[in-house]
Amino acid sequence: MSMRKQTSKTAGAAKQKLPLVIVGSIGVDDIATPFERRTSLLGGSVSYACAAAAFFSPVGMVGIVGTDFPAKYLEAYRRMGIDLQGLQQAEGRTFRWSGEYDADMINRRTLLTELNVFETFMPELPEAYRDASFLLLGNIAPSLQLHVLKECRRPKFVVADTMDLWIKNTRAALMKVISRVDMLTLNDSEARLLTGLYSLRKAASRILEYGPRYVVIKKGEHGALLVSHAGNFLVPAFPLEDVRDPTGAGDMFAGAFLGALAKAGTVNRRTVREALLYGSVVASFGVESFSLDRLLVLKRVEIARRLGELKAMMRVER
Amino acid sequence: MSMRKQTSKTAGAAKQKLPLVIVGSIGVDDIATPFERRTSLLGGSVSYACAAAAFFSPVGMVGIVGTDFPAKYLEAYRRMGIDLQGLQQAEGRTFRWSGEYDADMINRRTLLTELNVFETFMPELPEAYRDASFLLLGNIAPSLQLHVLKECRRPKFVVADTMDLWIKNTRAALMKVISRVDMLTLNDSEARLLTGLYSLRKAASRILEYGPRYVVIKKGEHGALLVSHAGNFLVPAFPLEDVRDPTGAGDMFAGAFLGALAKAGTVNRRTVREALLYGSVVASFGVESFSLDRLLVLKRVEIARRLGELKAMMRVER
Repeated sequence: MSMRKQTSKTAGAAKQKLPLVIVGSIGVDDIATPFERRTSLLGGSVSYACAAAAFFSPVGMVGIVGTDFPAKYLEAYRRMGIDLQGLQQAEGRTFRWSGEYDADMINRRTLLTELNVFETFMPELPEAYRDASFLLLGNIAPSLQLHVLKECRRPKFVVADTMDLWIKNTRAALMKVISRVDMLTLNDSEARLLTGLYSLRKAASRILEYGPRYVVIKKGEHGALLVSHAGNFLVPAFPLEDVRDPTGAGDMFAGAFLGALAKAGTVNRRTVREALLYGSVVASFGVESFSLDRLLVLKRVEIARRLGELKAMMRVER
Repeated sequence: MSMRKQTSKTAGAAKQKLPLVIVGSIGVDDIATPFERRTSLLGGSVSYACAAAAFFSPVGMVGIVGTDFPAKYLEAYRRMGIDLQGLQQAEGRTFRWSGEYDADMINRRTLLTELNVFETFMPELPEAYRDASFLLLGNIAPSLQLHVLKECRRPKFVVADTMDLWIKNTRAALMKVISRVDMLTLNDSEARLLTGLYSLRKAASRILEYGPRYVVIKKGEHGALLVSHAGNFLVPAFPLEDVRDPTGAGDMFAGAFLGALAKAGTVNRRTVREALLYGSVVASFGVESFSLDRLLVLKRVEIARRLGELKAMMRVER
């Protein structure tokens, strides 16, 4: 008998088919910045991504927590309207991560990684998730990303995120993932590591040869670069007065992007670019506070207003 | 008797009134990158800025060289159509600078600075320059920038650039310059040094309080941020395949900006933003080669084409 059990406490219509599914890690984080230190925060790639996506689309979460996972965090997921049919709970402790940011609030050192229940995680898609059109394979082992991809019956647009760990240690599986998705997102240093090319433009072009139609290279506070055969797009970061905690920015960016794309329903030049701007805007709110604190109180009208401000800052003509 | 003499060998109509005047340093540079080492290059802020501005507008150069200044470099200025009535030549050696770039091609160490004839430089505006509408006070001592500003009878739009040296050592004079110009350009670390504020957006807002209507914070390969009471603008950098020598990028940016603004003739939201994009584009060409090598063979049609590409990468709607 498996130690895992599916949680069945989903808010509202449990049998509703989900247009968007996100898989990734769920963690309890300790984070230190030069200004502040916070402990036992709700974190993990799927937490950030689902919270951001939920502003735009119904979203199903695929992840795992331990028996120690605080009830208030489950409650936070529900308050944000995240579907939890795909959330597993297993005997043991939840994945824990601890990191410390440098003075630049960009570079960070990982102080601790405890896999805990994550070590034996095998993501399974509930029936209601298997017809999702939009799928985000958050930053987890490529073998698990592949497994989820296979369980999805007819995805229309699949995004995969990754990190240096998988590029270094499980490259063959990662390359298989990359060859099967529509979009790969990764940060600038990871793009260089994956391709061996320093120029981000060259690196992105090389990654297109691996299979995806779109590559998004994330540059933190400097925005992102979309490269595709249908043209490139410079995704600006919203210039913030203050960044309090950059953790999860890339996950919020990807989550809001795919949520907005799922809401648009069709994938074309305009909807992709618009959705990338939503990603940038939601991430800019997210880093204003620790964990999901800002997203938990964020209103759609604030997103719309900041998107308008961002577009005004990109516009040459009146 | 002064050791200085005015060069009188200007190309074409010597008495033509110049709409745009640029003052700054002229140097002979030795530059090393991780990939290449080059010596005795034509450099200096006014060389880069005038070369970039000359694509758009007649421009007068105010600077100083020594008797060792290679004739081929004077010839290069003339080939680019730069007016040299304001160029002084003095007994002694030309200003020399030597620097070495890190692997990131952004951070650099200064290996040598020899002021030489620059030490006693006192910029003087020829009569044909004194009615210039557009003035760029390139990166030189604030006292000299002030002197040039006073010699200009009715400038319509004045831009000043500066650097950490002046912020640290001659802050009072620099603040006087800042209070009297329309736009200050400086890089991100300099904005933080000048204001003591880490957030670039806060730093820019503080600088607006010092007097200018516009502040442009340069972020190297990540573009620039325009902050003004009339709104902010995210100036993207053109994503390049290769950067060969980033020296002078900020000067080319400022020179092409002001050249394009002078060409437009009027200063408004649209012309300022368009001119900033020209600055970004010309700088992106300039860093593809050492010294002015790329600008010397650059064609206007190439600038127009890359501007079109850049705008396409900024556009959300079709």
